[in-house]
Amino acid sequence: MAKGITKRSEDYAAWYNDIVKKADLAENSPVRGCMIIKPYGFAIWEKMQAAIDKMFKDTGHSNVYFPLFIPKSFMSKEAAHVEGFAKECAVVTHYRLKNADDGSGVIVDPEAKLEEELIIRPTSETVIWSTYKKWIQSYRDLPLLLNQWANVVRWEMRTRLFLRTTEFLWQEGHTAHATKKEAEEETLKMLDVYATFAEKFMAMPVLKGVKTETERFAGAVDTYCIEALMQDGKALQSGTSHFLGQNFARAFDVQFATKEENLDYVWGTSWGTSTRLMGALVMAHSDDNGLVLPPKLAPIQVVIVPIYKKPEELADIRKVAEQMKSQLQDKDISVKFDDRDTYKPGWKFAEYELKGVPVRLAVGPRDLENGTVEIARRDTLEKSVISIEGVISHVQNLLTEIQENIYRKAFNFRETNTIQVDSYDEFKAILAERGGFVLAHWDGTKETEEKIKSETMATIRLIPLHPENEKGRCIYSGKPSDCRVVFAKAY
Amino acid sequence: MAKGITKRSEDYAAWYNDIVKKADLAENSPVRGCMIIKPYGFAIWEKMQAAIDKMFKDTGHSNVYFPLFIPKSFMSKEAAHVEGFAKECAVVTHYRLKNADDGSGVIVDPEAKLEEELIIRPTSETVIWSTYKKWIQSYRDLPLLLNQWANVVRWEMRTRLFLRTTEFLWQEGHTAHATKKEAEEETLKMLDVYATFAEKFMAMPVLKGVKTETERFAGAVDTYCIEALMQDGKALQSGTSHFLGQNFARAFDVQFATKEENLDYVWGTSWGTSTRLMGALVMAHSDDNGLVLPPKLAPIQVVIVPIYKKPEELADIRKVAEQMKSQLQDKDISVKFDDRDTYKPGWKFAEYELKGVPVRLAVGPRDLENGTVEIARRDTLEKSVISIEGVISHVQNLLTEIQENIYRKAFNFRETNTIQVDSYDEFKAILAERGGFVLAHWDGTKETEEKIKSETMATIRLIPLHPENEKGRCIYSGKPSDCRVVFAKAY
Repeated sequence: MAKGITKRSEDYAAWYNDIVKKADLAENSPVRGCMIIKPYGFAIWEKMQAAIDKMFKDTGHSNVYFPLFIPKSFMSKEAAHVEGFAKECAVVTHYRLKNADDGSGVIVDPEAKLEEELIIRPTSETVIWSTYKKWIQSYRDLPLLLNQWANVVRWEMRTRLFLRTTEFLWQEGHTAHATKKEAEEETLKMLDVYATFAEKFMAMPVLKGVKTETERFAGAVDTYCIEALMQDGKALQSGTSHFLGQNFARAFDVQFATKEENLDYVWGTSWGTSTRLMGALVMAHSDDNGLVLPPKLAPIQVVIVPIYKKPEELADIRKVAEQMKSQLQDKDISVKFDDRDTYKPGWKFAEYELKGVPVRLAVGPRDLENGTVEIARRDTLEKSVISIEGVISHVQNLLTEIQENIYRKAFNFRETNTIQVDSYDEFKAILAERGGFVLAHWDGTKETEEKIKSETMATIRLIPLHPENEKGRCIYSGKPSDCRVVFAKAY
Repeated sequence: MAKGITKRSEDYAAWYNDIVKKADLAENSPVRGCMIIKPYGFAIWEKMQAAIDKMFKDTGHSNVYFPLFIPKSFMSKEAAHVEGFAKECAVVTHYRLKNADDGSGVIVDPEAKLEEELIIRPTSETVIWSTYKKWIQSYRDLPLLLNQWANVVRWEMRTRLFLRTTEFLWQEGHTAHATKKEAEEETLKMLDVYATFAEKFMAMPVLKGVKTETERFAGAVDTYCIEALMQDGKALQSGTSHFLGQNFARAFDVQFATKEENLDYVWGTSWGTSTRLMGALVMAHSDDNGLVLPPKLAPIQVVIVPIYKKPEELADIRKVAEQMKSQLQDKDISVKFDDRDTYKPGWKFAEYELKGVPVRLAVGPRDLENGTVEIARRDTLEKSVISIEGVISHVQNLLTEIQENIYRKAFNFRETNTIQVDSYDEFKAILAERGGFVLAHWDGTKETEEKIKSETMATIRLIPLHPENEKGRCIYSGKPSDCRVVFAKAY
């Protein structure tokens, strides 16, 4: 198809990589596993950040910044946390280079060895809770509702642009509360913020639920998550919200004087989303022609392409185009008028299709005569000719319709690919043939979960928050079960 | 004074630290030399970022993200750059920890040693130009006008909150151009953006100029800067813009086909400002009562404090206060109504004075009777009682006036403390007694510059962009000089 994009039906992974690279979202860097986020990709990320950040602030959170470095000893303080995070991480051991004696360049100065090694943060619970100890003495200091936008590093062996990279960008919320109830409410509130963002902005339907013990965040009492279904039938975890109980408060000795003048450990939560959402956005909606962007996250919502042969024609078109542009901008719609003479209209059409610009307007001399403009929508690739009179409100309505249509399409895809099964044979067959979310009974044991995973590659994505009250028998062990859980192969 | 802030006249450095800590801007972290930026400090930084970022976008720049890690060998490619930056930096040598055999915690896994060490970026020219080589083939690919907001690390021995920290936040612009002229214009354009930001938003007057060779960015042909004068008579470099010539293009072999179909090396610029600006902001305007913020960067521009004894009184005040708040918010003014009953009005007054909130409104029962409100401005500490009728437009005008007054005060301070001298004795006396910007003739040699520095601690902050055409003789060597340069002791 367009510009040498592999078809999804041929090789889904290659299709994904083609879109990310050819739509100028990101590329691999000279450092293994790290990515370069290119201007167009970063503009989408900035729109995501702005929307999420506003939702955080509207729910009472403030931004802060904690250091990149974590002393090695901090990682050992929470027993489960160290098992989960202290292993594959970047370790700073020295603080100086010097010229090599043979003039070949610079070498690490052996005399500049740190007394205690520093870890590049894989997540910041430890450094933040060590600070909360200083900030929290009394119930009056609570709640603390903080978030940071930061880069983190997890030394991954197999990486894929956006989906799994050694360094990635994310936000991590870290809150502290006087009561268990309040912390639990916060955990679920932020899960809702993530779900709302995914659905309203990314146009991506998500399931909400709680993770099994196996899939839980290292150091959490409970991990809640949102899970989206990609077009290849695999699940993608798109945000997690952790109820930490008093685990980190105990590890870092963060106690407070309660209203009743007792001492108690502080209750905590943490929650995060990352540039992984960019991968989800690409895979949720795009097609064999390129990226498909929901209007709310599109850096360019409308592109105007002039169709002309002679310079005089361009001059006439420009007048109309600039007027449309400024009227659309007055409605807070971002518009690009691409009057470059170095590229032909057909090339531009393919380019903006590839980059997922939701609406394209084309204006030629005949349109000027007739008072019309050609309008094309990226999601359905439909074209029509409309009167230039009503173009502004037409575009406004169309952007809303595209946003809704993309969501509806993804929702219908998920509904079609969410299947209830009652036997392990059926379970295996569906996962092997088409994937999707598979709702099945499970006996609640780690052993069964692991066996199913090793035999089918499917994991329990979540236990629904509000399961239907349907008793049944585990598809693997036949033991009794209180509700169906959601299985899928996952990114 | 207020809340135990050291007076400027007693100990300026202690005063600065007191303000930063007591106004909740930042504090030291458990990791040596790294800071924690607290919610109130970060809210100011976010306002700075938003204003600067908009100016970048309005001048055609896009944001991107390049990796945190730089392969050690990259640092050696530009000869001057390696001397300046490859020395005091954080070096990642390993990518895994493991449990210690004695159960004492985690240790670095000696088997997980990197083949090539990675440097935490002290600045990103090397990794960016190594990528530009892939992105630039023809003049059609130029200019590239990119910027990134990122954290960087320079291993500093002596650190001070905001002013000099091992890790800091900054933005770094990196542009690539087809001609020398265009790159030089870009360098000066971004210097102007910085100067405009400092003056219009920070209310901080700056001098613009070019650095001497000694003070130049490692790898640049010319470094331009803006310099501001702090209240203790020391200069603070507040932004730099570098004309890189073809240095990094040569180091990373970035050539392009010109319009005339020749091959040429690409011309480059880079420019940056950092959280150091937070330190400048504190020192430029604050007083012995605490922070003084220009309204354009104040997270809270107006605070409303109720004065009451009985709950009924608060209920009446609340009606009026909430109405004022919403009317002010309609004018895009950020307002806080502090109705906490855990603190008394006097405590709140001191608190908002300490935090530099530009305007304070106080409303009590008698004000309700009289239709008045007490209004206090932070910059002059003046109070007056005004009719509640005109309060909205009064506040609007007052915010503008405060912004201008703060600037004027800083401007007058700088004018008073900018002194022209013609003898080395006078030069030394002024620097020893009062500091300030000292305009003096210099013979243009590195030797003289170094001798003056070692004898007086003063450095050449800049050579003016448009010097007055006044010939003279170097205050140190007596040799001829074409213009005066600006000396000062500096942060």
